[in-house]
Parts: sequence; C-alpha cells; structure tokens
Amino acid sequence: MPHTYITVQHDGTEDAVAVEEPLEIRVDGEPLAVTMRTPGHDEELALGFLFGEGLIDRPRQAGPTDDFAANTVDVEGPLLRDPGARRFYTTSSCGVCGKGALEEVAVLSEPLGPEPVLDRALLAALPQRLTQPTFAKTGGLHATGLFDAAGTLLYAREDVGRHNAMDKVVGRALLDGLVPLSGQILCVSGRLSFELAQKAAVAGAPVLVGVSAPSSLAIALAQERGLTLCGFARGQTVNVYTHPERVREG
Amino acid sequence: MPHTYITVQHDGTEDAVAVEEPLEIRVDGEPLAVTMRTPGHDEELALGFLFGEGLIDRPRQAGPTDDFAANTVDVEGPLLRDPGARRFYTTSSCGVCGKGALEEVAVLSEPLGPEPVLDRALLAALPQRLTQPTFAKTGGLHATGLFDAAGTLLYAREDVGRHNAMDKVVGRALLDGLVPLSGQILCVSGRLSFELAQKAAVAGAPVLVGVSAPSSLAIALAQERGLTLCGFARGQTVNVYTHPERVREG
Repeated sequence: MPHTYITVQHDGTEDAVAVEEPLEIRVDGEPLAVTMRTPGHDEELALGFLFGEGLIDRPRQAGPTDDFAANTVDVEGPLLRDPGARRFYTTSSCGVCGKGALEEVAVLSEPLGPEPVLDRALLAALPQRLTQPTFAKTGGLHATGLFDAAGTLLYAREDVGRHNAMDKVVGRALLDGLVPLSGQILCVSGRLSFELAQKAAVAGAPVLVGVSAPSSLAIALAQERGLTLCGFARGQTVNVYTHPERVREG
Repeated sequence: MPHTYITVQHDGTEDAVAVEEPLEIRVDGEPLAVTMRTPGHDEELALGFLFGEGLIDRPRQAGPTDDFAANTVDVEGPLLRDPGARRFYTTSSCGVCGKGALEEVAVLSEPLGPEPVLDRALLAALPQRLTQPTFAKTGGLHATGLFDAAGTLLYAREDVGRHNAMDKVVGRALLDGLVPLSGQILCVSGRLSFELAQKAAVAGAPVLVGVSAPSSLAIALAQERGLTLCGFARGQTVNVYTHPERVREG
C-alpha cells in the first residue's frame, strides 16, 4: 500500500502531511493526462476518470505500464471517442456558456430513476458516516463515499483532489459492476462544483450530498438531469436544492 | 459588474449561491483553455493563468473577443512557448514524479530574496484580514489576498476555483507592475496544494499562507524554491513548514 501521508518537521514538532504526487494516465501506452493525486487506488482513479469523461463505458484492464514506470497507470484501449475533442467550445459569437456544459453532460448520462426515497435525517447525517482516516491525521484530504439507500457505506476514498476521490469511488464501483449507481448515494466532504455533479450524473447516482455549498452550475445540472442535490449536510440539518421528491420529511 | 452569486429556492426558503460558469481563454482569437470560474475579473484571471504557466512574462492586452462572445476573453499573443508542450512527462522507465514537477517550476521561477521578515502573530492573523464578501453570502467561494509586509491587504479575489482566485490576484498585480511580488505575502482561504505553491513561486512571492493543510509536494516545492510556507493560520497560531528564517518569534 503506498504512503498516503508522510511526517514532516515544523516549529520544533512533527506532523502528518497528505502526500501529493503526479499520476500519468496512459491508454495503450500513450500518455493521456496527468493529475496531482494522493497515491493508492490508481487503477480505480484512472478508470473513474475515463468513465466520467465518457471515454470508456465498462471496466478495462488497468495496471502498471510495461516498463513499470513509477506514478503511471496504463489502461487498455481503445477509447470511445477522441479525447482531444474540445469541450464547451462554440464557433458562433454566442460564446461558451453553462448551457453548453449541461448539454455535454446530457449526452454522457442516462436518465435517473425515481429511487431511492430517503429520510431527510439520513441525508443530514451521512457525512458523519464517511470515514476519513488520513484526513484525521493530516487535515489535508477530500473524501467521497458511496452509500446504499439504507445509509451503509460501501466504499470511501480520500485524495488531495476532490475530483480524484470521486473518480476512485466510481472506478471501484465500475470494477464491481455497480455502475450505473442506481438507488445509491454519493457523499463528498466539501463543496459541490459542476465537475462533481457531472461525475455523479454520468455515474448514474440519483443523490449527491455535500458538506458545503453548491455552485450555481452544479444546481442547474442537478435540476436538469434529475439529480437530488443536497448541500451543507451538517448532522442535524441539510439543504435540498433540487428534486426533493426523493426526500421524505421526518 | 457580473453577478458573483444568485438567489435560489430550497426547502421553502431562499439562499445565495456562488455563480460558476465556464470561461474560454483565447490567444489572438485561438481557443487555448476553458476553466470553470466565478464571473468577474476575467482579464486578470487570463493573464494570471498564462503567467503562472510561463506562457507570458509581462502584461498583455486582454479583453472581449472581436465578436464579443460571452464568457470568453482574448489575450494578445504570441505566447513564449508552445502551450501544448507536455508537462511532467518522461520517456524513460523512471516514470513521472514530483521531482519532475519541481524541476519544471524551477525553470519558471526566479530566486526569492530574504525579505520580508514577519512576526509570527501577523502571519497567524492574516486570514482574518482577507475580505470575502461573496463567501459571507454563499459559503461557496475560495479567496486569495495579496498583502504587503505590514499586513495591509492590497487585493482580494474570490472564485469557486482556488487556483482561479490566485490567478486573478497575480493577474491584477501583473497589470499594476507589482510582479515579481518581492517582499509581499499571498494568503489563501483553504488548503495549500502544489499548484498554489507553484503559482506563488512563479509570481515571486516569498511567503505563502493558508488557512488549512499543505500537501507533501507543496512543502517540497516551497523548501526547494526558498518559499516560506505557512499552514493552519487560525488567528492565534500558525504552522511554518519551510524557511522559518522569514519568521520573527513574538
């Protein structure tokens, strides 16, 4: 298991610090992307990332490169589309807009079913069930958890990058045949950006919960895709921004 | 002034939510990059981003595109190097590593001078002086501030993306002839990632302060480049991870 934290000296004492290292994702040996991540679960990260971008639609072989290069992971190709295709761009003078981004996600994601319907109290308390062992040591990691409709934690992953933590969870679920994440809940330790809402929608999760604030475009995406978006989940209370039909009042 | 927040309805009440929209950065009319950002100070964002990547080394003309497309900003070229050049990649079997990333930053950044020397109490309290008006309304924005050695706030910028907030500050400083940021302090509202430490080092700021935890690679970069990196600045206390010779004990 790679180190997720190291010990550093400061001010005459020592502390644990979260590890951040680059990871190069290759496809059939060709470099595709570099992300700064916390080591561990690199294959899951690569698969979840490619799935979220619509570049793969099922599990692929993933593992060390032929030359066993450090901090690299190789995924079996070919990809479903040219990864170099530009995103959000337009050629007209209307310019780029959130609508273009939403339309792109619509192409990548399937409609979400009406289930699950969850107690508001369960949603509010979900972050307390999201285990964050390395955050507890370092204070420096984001986390994503996948929960079933009973609120049982299926997987939790931590990373210096919030998007990486979710990619790792989606990649693990993909390998276990759980994608689309019908009837399940994704929960993140921080804010709810467009990017996280996109990854949840593409993975087919009907409910996304965060400890902090959503952005305007995350709300717009959730509204449009039928995703129940919950923010500021703080134990006793939670805000439900979209699709409250999946929330049962206590 | 563009809207930095909107009002949304949820749970029978209403709340302010931070705006997130894509911004396309063009150079001489050619699309270069898209970032999800909070509208406002787009020219500063574009210039700060290009500067941090080593693509420009002085202010450039920046403004609306010829066709006045929405959410786009056009910067006068040419760039100093091909922006498509791959980063952190190697061709040998040693793989990618943090060392490669550090070497790349070394190429982009000048040595930092010994000044300023600051009281520890000033560093600990700096985040309290970082004004965050839209965060106060929404709870959903990161902030970066530039301070002089007396602890006076020169600029503050907020954004849904932490890197964007710093790019906006560096872009503003570039336009005002303040780069390199000799003798000054950058302060961020959140965690200290490699990317933020890189931007600070390239902008020539000798001191970088954050409210939360640093990553291992941010510390390694700061150590190597001579940057004083301070984390967990919480009013009364602060951790000084690297180059404490700029910190005067109270």
